[in-house]
Amino acid sequence: MKAMTDTLRGGILAIAALSAGAAAAAETDDLREAAGDYFVPVPSTVPAVADNPITPEKIALGKALFFDPRMSISGVFSCNSCHNLATGGDDNLPTSIGHGWQRGPRNAPTVLNSIFNSAQFWDGRAADLAEQAKGPVQAGVEMANTPENLIATLKSMPQYVEWFQGSFPGRDDPVTFDNFAKAIEAYEATLITPAPFDAWLNGDDAALSDRQKEGLAIFMDAGCATCHGGVNLGGNGYYPFGLVEKPGADVLPETDTGRFQVTETAGDEYVFRAAPLRNIAVTAPYFHSGAVWDLNTAVGIMATSQLGADLNEDEIAAVTAFLQSLTGEVPEVVYPLLPPETAETPVPTGAVRP
Amino acid sequence: MKAMTDTLRGGILAIAALSAGAAAAAETDDLREAAGDYFVPVPSTVPAVADNPITPEKIALGKALFFDPRMSISGVFSCNSCHNLATGGDDNLPTSIGHGWQRGPRNAPTVLNSIFNSAQFWDGRAADLAEQAKGPVQAGVEMANTPENLIATLKSMPQYVEWFQGSFPGRDDPVTFDNFAKAIEAYEATLITPAPFDAWLNGDDAALSDRQKEGLAIFMDAGCATCHGGVNLGGNGYYPFGLVEKPGADVLPETDTGRFQVTETAGDEYVFRAAPLRNIAVTAPYFHSGAVWDLNTAVGIMATSQLGADLNEDEIAAVTAFLQSLTGEVPEVVYPLLPPETAETPVPTGAVRP
Repeated sequence: MKAMTDTLRGGILAIAALSAGAAAAAETDDLREAAGDYFVPVPSTVPAVADNPITPEKIALGKALFFDPRMSISGVFSCNSCHNLATGGDDNLPTSIGHGWQRGPRNAPTVLNSIFNSAQFWDGRAADLAEQAKGPVQAGVEMANTPENLIATLKSMPQYVEWFQGSFPGRDDPVTFDNFAKAIEAYEATLITPAPFDAWLNGDDAALSDRQKEGLAIFMDAGCATCHGGVNLGGNGYYPFGLVEKPGADVLPETDTGRFQVTETAGDEYVFRAAPLRNIAVTAPYFHSGAVWDLNTAVGIMATSQLGADLNEDEIAAVTAFLQSLTGEVPEVVYPLLPPETAETPVPTGAVRP
Repeated sequence: MKAMTDTLRGGILAIAALSAGAAAAAETDDLREAAGDYFVPVPSTVPAVADNPITPEKIALGKALFFDPRMSISGVFSCNSCHNLATGGDDNLPTSIGHGWQRGPRNAPTVLNSIFNSAQFWDGRAADLAEQAKGPVQAGVEMANTPENLIATLKSMPQYVEWFQGSFPGRDDPVTFDNFAKAIEAYEATLITPAPFDAWLNGDDAALSDRQKEGLAIFMDAGCATCHGGVNLGGNGYYPFGLVEKPGADVLPETDTGRFQVTETAGDEYVFRAAPLRNIAVTAPYFHSGAVWDLNTAVGIMATSQLGADLNEDEIAAVTAFLQSLTGEVPEVVYPLLPPETAETPVPTGAVRP
């Protein structure tokens, strides 16, 4: 594989010098074939989700829940607060600010295309998006709610009860914490962003610039694609951050041991899920620590720490150019109109629980 | 006027007993004629705004700015955080939670139809929405930004600069704090919500139920309409809260002297702008203190404190039924896609300035 991509890279670098369009086309086909070993374009339809049939009713309910700040105990934060669909599906902060102005421990990942990750969170502690959705609503530093208060809130609003009935038909009591999470998962499964890279994978030669093709060749050649492959160019495996060389404590704080906190296995210290790279250019800052704002810098750190590859400035810039081709088209979202509260709706509290 | 509406009220109450549709129609016409002395339906088009020509470009820019959390120093709060278009144009909190988890001093009013208020804020200290828009972004307890940092943020994103150029053509330096505010005002001018009451004012007899017509007659008869008139049923005059009888300190905290803090005129102590009542049923809690969650309770307090009117439970419920007819149709909002940050974009800070 390495030899092949080396050849490809040389070929791409030489494209500008070629006079024959046919030769360039052949090189492009070779590059695409090599890329096919690593990457999968996003599908044109919403993927099926295990144990959670996706219906229009469930998507609509999940969208309302996703945007509803009353899912937090304070009434201030919705899912969209930290996974903002207006700004790449994340919040552009090093780590999120949550309940009581507390700082979260890790950078909020984008919700876009998250359905294609094999597990959720930086340490993969949630098997799927439904399980993930139950985390932040209960986390004391995020939405600080309880399942009981959340369900009481939903049940106090007849419109929500009706939407749950329509989304989970034939159930006696459809307004449950599990169904809340499944509805959100259903909505999130629709948040897929086809990008120029997909168009190129699907055969559109013009969808990537020559510079981006050069970056793609380097991306494969240097070994990035080994961890950052699949549909999401990442999100499907666990690797030690600092495999070859540990980055500084500003980027890799010693106190956060990553997947070790989930598995308590010695080999999992400082192990994190390889970050999915779709929309990476619009979701700074980078890494679980959110410590790096510049994409070139992040690419350089990855090359050194994970691959021991000494990419020069131009090569790094080429990779970054390629990563720009992963910025996709966000589906049009009509902002939801949420059910009004009633006399039975629990009053929000901004108080910080001890 | 009082005698006429007394008669009307009797007539409406008697409608159920009438067998002839013609008689009911005549009563409805009389009620509509009386209502015409107080109320104006919302227009079908976006109103002209003084010194701020409304264009599609400016509306689109204003919408982006309205939804952009990077307009706050922390990157957490947008205009929409406290004036949420998903929940009646406000945040459903007694008073908003802002920068550093600080509580604002007064209940956030709805942005919906705010263009029809003669002045903005509970004390009318901003003459128009453009002036209003400059307040929260700078307020230490709200978005805690500075005009300088806000403009640097906007100028760091080429897409924003382009949008400002398109919205304020022919200007050398269109990205200014004034133009930021004008664009937001332009967007907010589009947030008009035609309601069943408008349909009724415009001649659709069936748009209000008999109970709502009864409530409307009481609303005019008791004197509510004297302050709560015009397009917004309020928002156009200043009155002492507790004109007849001061409510308790929980509802009218002693420390907030209202318009006195603006004018420093003795007569303005505890004077507030009459609250606009459109969408009141979906914008609890009520009053500048946000202390009352139940609309019936709020109506009862108003009747006692402002009018010395002793409305019974049934009359209060009728008025509340009428107020439900002011819940309007919110324009469809396509959630904006905001320009991505660049290396020049100021980094957000969650730090609370001393």
